[in-house]
Amino acid sequence: MTTTRNPTAATSQVTVLGLGEMGSAIARTFVDRGHRTTVWNRTASRSTPLVESGATAAATAAEAVAASPLVIVCLLDNTAVEEVLASVGPAVAGKVLVNVTSGSAGQARANERWAREHGAEYIDGKIMGDPPYVGTPDVMFPFSGSRGAFDAHEPTLRELGAIAYHGEDAGLAAVEFMAQVAVGYELLIGYLHVLRLVQAEGVDVVEFTERVAGSVAMYPSLLTSMGKAVQSGEYAPDLGPLYVQAALMDDMIDHRESLGVEAVRMKEVKELMDRRIAGGHGDQGFSSLFELLGRPSRA
Amino acid sequence: MTTTRNPTAATSQVTVLGLGEMGSAIARTFVDRGHRTTVWNRTASRSTPLVESGATAAATAAEAVAASPLVIVCLLDNTAVEEVLASVGPAVAGKVLVNVTSGSAGQARANERWAREHGAEYIDGKIMGDPPYVGTPDVMFPFSGSRGAFDAHEPTLRELGAIAYHGEDAGLAAVEFMAQVAVGYELLIGYLHVLRLVQAEGVDVVEFTERVAGSVAMYPSLLTSMGKAVQSGEYAPDLGPLYVQAALMDDMIDHRESLGVEAVRMKEVKELMDRRIAGGHGDQGFSSLFELLGRPSRA
Repeated sequence: MTTTRNPTAATSQVTVLGLGEMGSAIARTFVDRGHRTTVWNRTASRSTPLVESGATAAATAAEAVAASPLVIVCLLDNTAVEEVLASVGPAVAGKVLVNVTSGSAGQARANERWAREHGAEYIDGKIMGDPPYVGTPDVMFPFSGSRGAFDAHEPTLRELGAIAYHGEDAGLAAVEFMAQVAVGYELLIGYLHVLRLVQAEGVDVVEFTERVAGSVAMYPSLLTSMGKAVQSGEYAPDLGPLYVQAALMDDMIDHRESLGVEAVRMKEVKELMDRRIAGGHGDQGFSSLFELLGRPSRA
Repeated sequence: MTTTRNPTAATSQVTVLGLGEMGSAIARTFVDRGHRTTVWNRTASRSTPLVESGATAAATAAEAVAASPLVIVCLLDNTAVEEVLASVGPAVAGKVLVNVTSGSAGQARANERWAREHGAEYIDGKIMGDPPYVGTPDVMFPFSGSRGAFDAHEPTLRELGAIAYHGEDAGLAAVEFMAQVAVGYELLIGYLHVLRLVQAEGVDVVEFTERVAGSVAMYPSLLTSMGKAVQSGEYAPDLGPLYVQAALMDDMIDHRESLGVEAVRMKEVKELMDRRIAGGHGDQGFSSLFELLGRPSRA
């Protein structure tokens, strides 16, 4: 499909630094789709299967970077990225670095400054999905950083999965990744506590999870309507008016405390609801609690 | 549909105590489907539209209870339930009380004891949905309590929506309700904090929520597989092995602290992950954190 849309893709040159499970899956995708692919890994033996399929192995990271205009960096962590980039040095000038290594928004911004100082363009990427699915729409790649470099190499990057560009600020891909992942962790740790509660009450845990899985189908529309309420500041009584919800929260806290199940989030929600009600907003919905959360800001 | 399956349903007699928005919707459903319906409300004028449709208004709660073998109680809160039941007194003997008023598992169990002491059978119910949808599958009614009474009146109760019986323990409907609702609140309060984070990073909040809504589609299968892991104690590396996830958690905590966004759940998750890893379980997945949550028990 992609090569049909982009006749030049099959001839593009790309380098992949780092051949762990994810880096190998990325290099494999490029090789299989006819890109001239150069690979490098600290432990050289990792490149053997890729070389047998047509990739070129470089002896050093600097040599690998010199081989292609587009360099994908996929290493263990940001410390490894800093070490490898330092070893590459001047060879990076004129290149486009696409760093998909795990790391924070701040690290992405620091890497972007390093690249600029060394004459390279920088794109940060994060990977939401597992190595076997690289090259399919089941893996999402948020990218951010140099718009020009992204546009120039979009057809090649598109080989990897469902890609999206989030803005010139190189940290935005990490922000997207961490925010999406955080929504999941918030749900899942709360969920584990709830499983303790239902187990303590003698409820069959697996049957309960099947019922919850059914209920989760209603969340997408709720999440988007809450986003609109937060952005507009107009808080319809989603989940019911706060003065009704607050009474329910008391029941839930009492129930948890009677069982010895933690109630940290329920207590936080109750305290926020009480403050909104005291402020004359008891007729608004759950989304309005947003107004009471601390207003953070980039330093 | 229901009257086809149950030829006697159209002639069943039912009383509804409490004609708030929800009680009125319940009574309306029974009247519209041909049940001989008696209603009572503290403020009598609430019964007028129902009487015009064919319901009978009772002058007192005791009179209303005397009129039907099945009595639905739908009042403001459990305090109102206790007051109204006390006013009914001996008229409750031989009746089936189905209390769908908001309240805790403990209150349900206490109401069940009161009913038994007064010669009545008790079913507790909770309502997951909004009044306009009563009488459709979009409203779920978990019930618990007397199995015999539930079986006898199931065709009539089925008129109200998607009903399910959760067990003889009268508290189990409230447990189901509070557990399901808690999963939602855990997700949603965490979500509001994440919205503060993306807003602080200059991300369009509404566009972000639309992306999250898309990601939520993957949760149902994850939630059920986590339930199976918790029940079996066999913890595959869901979300990746813990030693990989723990590094991500550090990034997320650092990011939040740099912005001034609360990180209470992320810190909890990190601390639990570190303990699992120290215990030699770093190759297991997120579900294995369940093993470290306090083991609650019914008093």
